[in-house]
Amino acid sequence: MRMFDIIEKKRDGKALSDEEIEFFIKGYTKGEIPDYQASALCMAIFFRGMTEKETVTLTMCMARSGDMLDLSRFGNLTADKHSTGGVGDKTTLIVAPIVACLGGIVTKMSGRGLGHTGGTVDKLEAIPGYRTALSEEEFLSQTERIGIAVIGQTGNLTPADKKLYALRDVTATVDSIPLITASIMSKKIAAGSKNIVLDVKYGSGAFMKTTEDAVKLAENMVKIGKGCGRNVTAVLTNMEVPLGSNIGNALEVKEAIDVLRGDQDDELTRVCVVLASEMTAQVKGIDAKEAEALVRGVIKDGSALEKMKEWVAAQGADPLCITDTELLPSAPVAYPVLSDKDGYITKTDAHLIGNAAMILGAGRASKEDSIDPSAGIVLKKKPGDYVKKGDVLCHLHTSDVSKIPDAEKTFRSALSFGDTAPEKQELVYKIIR
Amino acid sequence: MRMFDIIEKKRDGKALSDEEIEFFIKGYTKGEIPDYQASALCMAIFFRGMTEKETVTLTMCMARSGDMLDLSRFGNLTADKHSTGGVGDKTTLIVAPIVACLGGIVTKMSGRGLGHTGGTVDKLEAIPGYRTALSEEEFLSQTERIGIAVIGQTGNLTPADKKLYALRDVTATVDSIPLITASIMSKKIAAGSKNIVLDVKYGSGAFMKTTEDAVKLAENMVKIGKGCGRNVTAVLTNMEVPLGSNIGNALEVKEAIDVLRGDQDDELTRVCVVLASEMTAQVKGIDAKEAEALVRGVIKDGSALEKMKEWVAAQGADPLCITDTELLPSAPVAYPVLSDKDGYITKTDAHLIGNAAMILGAGRASKEDSIDPSAGIVLKKKPGDYVKKGDVLCHLHTSDVSKIPDAEKTFRSALSFGDTAPEKQELVYKIIR
Repeated sequence: MRMFDIIEKKRDGKALSDEEIEFFIKGYTKGEIPDYQASALCMAIFFRGMTEKETVTLTMCMARSGDMLDLSRFGNLTADKHSTGGVGDKTTLIVAPIVACLGGIVTKMSGRGLGHTGGTVDKLEAIPGYRTALSEEEFLSQTERIGIAVIGQTGNLTPADKKLYALRDVTATVDSIPLITASIMSKKIAAGSKNIVLDVKYGSGAFMKTTEDAVKLAENMVKIGKGCGRNVTAVLTNMEVPLGSNIGNALEVKEAIDVLRGDQDDELTRVCVVLASEMTAQVKGIDAKEAEALVRGVIKDGSALEKMKEWVAAQGADPLCITDTELLPSAPVAYPVLSDKDGYITKTDAHLIGNAAMILGAGRASKEDSIDPSAGIVLKKKPGDYVKKGDVLCHLHTSDVSKIPDAEKTFRSALSFGDTAPEKQELVYKIIR
Repeated sequence: MRMFDIIEKKRDGKALSDEEIEFFIKGYTKGEIPDYQASALCMAIFFRGMTEKETVTLTMCMARSGDMLDLSRFGNLTADKHSTGGVGDKTTLIVAPIVACLGGIVTKMSGRGLGHTGGTVDKLEAIPGYRTALSEEEFLSQTERIGIAVIGQTGNLTPADKKLYALRDVTATVDSIPLITASIMSKKIAAGSKNIVLDVKYGSGAFMKTTEDAVKLAENMVKIGKGCGRNVTAVLTNMEVPLGSNIGNALEVKEAIDVLRGDQDDELTRVCVVLASEMTAQVKGIDAKEAEALVRGVIKDGSALEKMKEWVAAQGADPLCITDTELLPSAPVAYPVLSDKDGYITKTDAHLIGNAAMILGAGRASKEDSIDPSAGIVLKKKPGDYVKKGDVLCHLHTSDVSKIPDAEKTFRSALSFGDTAPEKQELVYKIIR
């Protein structure tokens, strides 16, 4: 078999065989197939697409390129959640203890963030003492004991995806639905859960800018996940505006705790209830309506919050931090940004607010940057709110006051004002099962 | 400027600016842009194409990537000929002295062959003593003195094309009209001639298998060549069957001499007359009909043959070889292949006959192989001929009799027989000026 023929076949619009896809992924992972042939193939796939069968094979080959977590001892109870990423997305911190509380086995390997704010692992590390690196044995025994464990990705998980993604990232071949699908789903398959809920974001702060693209990707991921033998549900959620009020690692942990305390009835809570209900429905084999009642129950009676304490304690953190959020890292400065006009806020652009948070130290611009866990933004006004000149729009949290002018400028550029209230946007656009 | 943005722009179907194309070619030639980005761009170009303006810019950037021969001292008299390659193509050996004889300044840098038989340079080296490597000074002074010089390509001509072609060759991105055009035309531009005739082959023995593809390529090359300020004419010629009767380096030199002697009135002669007439028409600014009378004249009166002697003598060979072809290398064995049936020959597949010649030692399978100048095939029957069982179909010339069975088998597989004579095929399909 020759890589040349595989490229040419895909270039000419033909479907690759299982053997050809396996040859490519094995050869590329081992370094026997050079980058320049892999990038030519990715560009051909960008133009020609892949059939469902091809994408399932690609996903499975990439999943098998490294270690695969064996969660078979937990039967059909295992539940994983994946978000395509957004600004202020702290849903994992909320839904994981809820689902674990309801009998799900929630295991997650989460990434670190590159961009606006940290990834889930960075957020968890904002809780003093939380260990994101567990051995496989620790990981499994904790899961057995308390039904939940969230760690960073191990070195041996889907090396084919790591290598191929890095190449796609510099050759303009990221935006291909089959390649995105295989990249995401291979990691989910290797992570071992039987049940998977995908939170597919759309809008300014998301990878997919339009609902059409997000639906296409979501439908494909559900189809391919099922083709790989998993239960998969996709929830399409709005990321035009940041999710919730807090952006930044410790600030987001704090907001997650507020949701679990049950004293919120905001959009973030509603999205989390939907995600947790879908996960619970998968795990228990019940319908989502039924699951929702259970979800709301464990928030109300405090057992989900108790599960969060148990979880962070098991991973080395002080559970008192959950009871008393003053113990979480906190920035020395919380600078108020005041409105310079009267009017309705019509838009708070998620992408630009994410950039402002990054400027304050909440995210990484490059792999080597370190994160300030206390940095970030707390929004005081959201689209639809009427503000007067002098009202506080947000607080900028930082340890480095020199960053405030730049962050403020970026924050202000994210806001649009108008004379009338904007139309209310659906937060959950569609659920694909 | 970032290569990523250039790839993305072309991927999305937009035309690249002059600056972007120059950035790519300069950066890639210097090794600052990696192969994996260049191959992704080539694949995007394969799918999206290039405008005329983009292709002209690409051609000029590639031409300027290395040395450019300055032939301005010869004014508008310079003439170059390029063939897209075929089996038994010895036209350069014939048309170059004809055109030089008629006042044209014929300078050519020719390639070595990879495949069936050698390139023009390999064929010329079959003439004992012929030097294909001249210094620029020797090259120019010979051209000034006798109006003709044919040498091998120098190391510094279009390095961008050399590097990019090698990459395209292993990434299935060769078959792109703008990339083929820029590759061929950049070499012609760098070689300095004002007038260029392109012999674009189509059919089994050619790169372009159909007349449609060949016409598209030819039209594009003429357009781009003119856009680069040159006079360009393309002649589309049939390469379903080998050109002439002899395939193999010394055998082809011998056949070329036969044509220049004027005692042939075969298809090879007719193609050469067309090519030489188009070149002469460009050089003299006359029409092709008028030029044809001049061309036939210098064959008939022997002055073209005299020019050939003068030429090979100037490049170090013994001109007696031209007078007495017995002095050319000759194989110890000329093995006759006999027909095993009666019937009309309906086809002699150029590609397979080329393969048979390569097996005998006339060509290179890889860069490192050496060529046997005496090896090759002399066809005794052509499509349309009626043969009887036992008739000689061809002679296989070789120094290594162990290769005969394999070559004979391949040769036989190239022939088709039928009960009726096949339709006569046009040898010159179209001329594009």
